[in-house]
Amino acid sequence: MGRAVGNEEAAVEVNESLRTLRATRRFADRRIPDPLVERWLESARWCGSSRNSQPWRFLVVRDPQLRRQLSTLGDDASHLASASLVVALASVPGPYPFSTTFDLGRVAQSLMLAAHADGVGSCIAVFEPAEKVSVARDLLEVPSELTLDLAIGFGYPQQVPTQPRDPAGRLELELLVREVPPSQES
Amino acid sequence: MGRAVGNEEAAVEVNESLRTLRATRRFADRRIPDPLVERWLESARWCGSSRNSQPWRFLVVRDPQLRRQLSTLGDDASHLASASLVVALASVPGPYPFSTTFDLGRVAQSLMLAAHADGVGSCIAVFEPAEKVSVARDLLEVPSELTLDLAIGFGYPQQVPTQPRDPAGRLELELLVREVPPSQES
Repeated sequence: MGRAVGNEEAAVEVNESLRTLRATRRFADRRIPDPLVERWLESARWCGSSRNSQPWRFLVVRDPQLRRQLSTLGDDASHLASASLVVALASVPGPYPFSTTFDLGRVAQSLMLAAHADGVGSCIAVFEPAEKVSVARDLLEVPSELTLDLAIGFGYPQQVPTQPRDPAGRLELELLVREVPPSQES
Repeated sequence: MGRAVGNEEAAVEVNESLRTLRATRRFADRRIPDPLVERWLESARWCGSSRNSQPWRFLVVRDPQLRRQLSTLGDDASHLASASLVVALASVPGPYPFSTTFDLGRVAQSLMLAAHADGVGSCIAVFEPAEKVSVARDLLEVPSELTLDLAIGFGYPQQVPTQPRDPAGRLELELLVREVPPSQES
């Protein structure tokens, strides 16, 4: 294991990154260096998946015109136009659709977390409805054997969010967690 | 933002954690301290989700007998018996099943990554077939309005994996990534 595992300092960094990752939809006009993008993709590549199926495929879009076109293909996709980089996620359909979708969520979290650690924000966009998915498939030249699932816009945040650890906006732990059977102490 | 964001040292730690997270199925007989589990759940709670739906619910199981029972309820669930802790993931069904499943993958990745940063391994188990899901629901006292999706076994690894960065076992980046349109340099 590398030094990032099992030492308190690394654990604090990782937990802090997890807790401060937020959707970013307003991006600064600043190019993301290629080596950073390669680092995120390399980290995402190591994500686990059901039966090691690794169903994910990454379509990387920097081209402003293509990003603008993609930004019109979903209800909440406008941020793809101002992002510095779009990574569309496509997948290899498998026998267990639940697992494929779940694994896509895992790899998306890895990718967004890696970007966040470099100070780069992100936000997911879903292409919809079906006719627009079809247009996005054509624009992204998605091969017929792959499913086009969604896209993530990446960029440096236009403004640094204030109060990133404000508890508002998420359910409290006691509403989310239950011990079974109830612990003896409680 | 905390110090974990946008500085090179933190980025290295986060990327290293992402790259070295592996499924762990053989666990040491060693209790996981409660404060660590609370830290992971607190970090997972901050995970993003579609329309901030936060569909996840966490059922925490330490009880050995219950873990043994759960370990018989799936094809690849036997490790739940030797895990120190099981967290079953249930979800609030929403109008977009793709998003719910995708968001569960995100939160599972957050949870497993937080544990990994504390040196604790994990492996997902899916309850199947339907009759066994039903038994697991009863054992875990899952309310009728929630879906029981899967469980994650956590524990200190019985052996430290060797060669954690060996490239074998994952597809190479060039098979996974394509730039659209192709970059000018290539």
